[in-house]
Amino acid sequence: MSEELRSLLWTGSSLCVLDQLRLPFETEWIECTSYRDVYSVIKNMNTRGAPAIGVAAAYGMALAAREALTTPQPAQFVLDAGAYLKSARPTAVNLAWAVDRSLAEGAPSLGKSPQAAADELATFAGKLTQDDEDHNLALSKHGAELFEDGDIILTICNTGALATYRYGTAFGSINEAFKQGRKIQVIALETRPYLQGARLTALELVTAGIPFHLITDGMAGFMMSHGMVTKVIVGADRIASNGDFANKIGTYQLAVLAKYHGLPFYAAAPLSSFDFSIASGAEILVEQRDENEVLSFAGQRVAAEGAHAFNPSFDVTPNELLSGIVTERGVFRHPFGNWERP
Amino acid sequence: MSEELRSLLWTGSSLCVLDQLRLPFETEWIECTSYRDVYSVIKNMNTRGAPAIGVAAAYGMALAAREALTTPQPAQFVLDAGAYLKSARPTAVNLAWAVDRSLAEGAPSLGKSPQAAADELATFAGKLTQDDEDHNLALSKHGAELFEDGDIILTICNTGALATYRYGTAFGSINEAFKQGRKIQVIALETRPYLQGARLTALELVTAGIPFHLITDGMAGFMMSHGMVTKVIVGADRIASNGDFANKIGTYQLAVLAKYHGLPFYAAAPLSSFDFSIASGAEILVEQRDENEVLSFAGQRVAAEGAHAFNPSFDVTPNELLSGIVTERGVFRHPFGNWERP
Repeated sequence: MSEELRSLLWTGSSLCVLDQLRLPFETEWIECTSYRDVYSVIKNMNTRGAPAIGVAAAYGMALAAREALTTPQPAQFVLDAGAYLKSARPTAVNLAWAVDRSLAEGAPSLGKSPQAAADELATFAGKLTQDDEDHNLALSKHGAELFEDGDIILTICNTGALATYRYGTAFGSINEAFKQGRKIQVIALETRPYLQGARLTALELVTAGIPFHLITDGMAGFMMSHGMVTKVIVGADRIASNGDFANKIGTYQLAVLAKYHGLPFYAAAPLSSFDFSIASGAEILVEQRDENEVLSFAGQRVAAEGAHAFNPSFDVTPNELLSGIVTERGVFRHPFGNWERP
Repeated sequence: MSEELRSLLWTGSSLCVLDQLRLPFETEWIECTSYRDVYSVIKNMNTRGAPAIGVAAAYGMALAAREALTTPQPAQFVLDAGAYLKSARPTAVNLAWAVDRSLAEGAPSLGKSPQAAADELATFAGKLTQDDEDHNLALSKHGAELFEDGDIILTICNTGALATYRYGTAFGSINEAFKQGRKIQVIALETRPYLQGARLTALELVTAGIPFHLITDGMAGFMMSHGMVTKVIVGADRIASNGDFANKIGTYQLAVLAKYHGLPFYAAAPLSSFDFSIASGAEILVEQRDENEVLSFAGQRVAAEGAHAFNPSFDVTPNELLSGIVTERGVFRHPFGNWERP
């Protein structure tokens, strides 16, 4: 097994995407040669994780700009492609952010030189990728300072290299603390319905050599009440101006449980996951996904026939349950709202 | 689909057990002709649910007494069978309770007339079965009074006819309220790792025609914070003298979440699930099951190779988080401890 997992790879003319639907048992790459291919891998969750989706979307815009060269109205084509890409998933802010920044970057050239726009968008996607790498490394170093010998750190979903371009956020912080030699352990929630914890985080933990145990989502309170968790750190898909944040379903109840048991509870995300256009979590649209993700697994129905399910893919945790937010600029603490803007 | 599901059927010479491992898609019965067969169906969870396990164990003792007739030391054989049956699962008190009551019932005859003891144990198992039916019906009528039009009732695991000899406990209360015409809905937790909610409770809800949605265990807090739950009712596998109780893993954190959101939280169990020999939940042994139940989903490995898991099958909820305990004698409320003994 390699020492580092990678989620995305730009070949210069296409975006190769590690198919996370087939992990942890098969390592297959999907080659995207058009923006519609990129839309498809985001929509179908072949790749996921807010920062990774942002990077993929930027390359999707680069591909769109290249495709536009053979169309009668290149500028309109790229604008339409951006709107289409943004519709792939609604909750993570990084998707819309990456598309909008790409459009802003390419705007001066779009109308007059489509070729220049295509080059600029490819360059910009590369810069965004480098930023993601730099920011996550800086973030992980700040986050690592939160942990000390003996900590048992609970986390949900997947927030490592597979969820970003590189290093990860919450997982990056844990991994950095471990690499610095701190004696820590991890409790990873399996994270139904999509099992990102069991499938992806477990793979990243095994790869990194960090001692850990998986638990089901219903075991978190038991572990906390038995002293088998000392700190909680999670990722964030969108952070409002007041610090409220959306993350994988199950995060909100972890925050309530951490508060009840007196445990520190951190979110970790780059500043690109902040949405300064919204005042609070009340404005965050929570993505409802297909009920079959709850009723089935891997194409196999598990629920009785006739059953229906709810499937909110995210929840919103209010800032008052947060001990701090780890970013590339450091750990922000209460009162939130006085952010250093990117 | 039949109007009522049944978990166990005594033929007069064998115990037929509905194989709950194959539900909801296949209806297969396992015929137990020896106490070792009964041990096996309890151990392997072909049948489960504290009251159903108690009834099955009583029939296991009746089978043991009959088998003892052809052994050189019938009394010792029956005592050994009792100890063996009790070792099948440690948490639910009903198992040990049913074995001990069977032994007490047969004791006077065991030494002098093995045939009389065999008859007495079969008769006693039948009486226990009738008691379970009567107590659960009475319990369900008391529990139904807790619910009113518009209630959205959250429950975990499976507590219907499949978990008992008949009617059920927490599910019985919900079902009785529905049969009485109250306009209620149910939110059922899928209940990982064993999926009793998705597989069994969903089947019971569909069969009863009660409107419901399944959710994953990580969605409970989201539903509560969005006003999509008004009351919580759960079963209990063992209740200590002070009202602390063991139930399916995930119950404890539901109780914490209900308290945080100001929602009533009830347990429902017959008095046979009370263990007056222990003062508090601290004395309850929590059963740890095979880690593969967590590492796999519906029989298919999902976790990365190299991963390990914790699998506490139950947790203990302290009485201070409880609004009341529904029994066949009525709903007990704080202060607990002044029980009407069976």
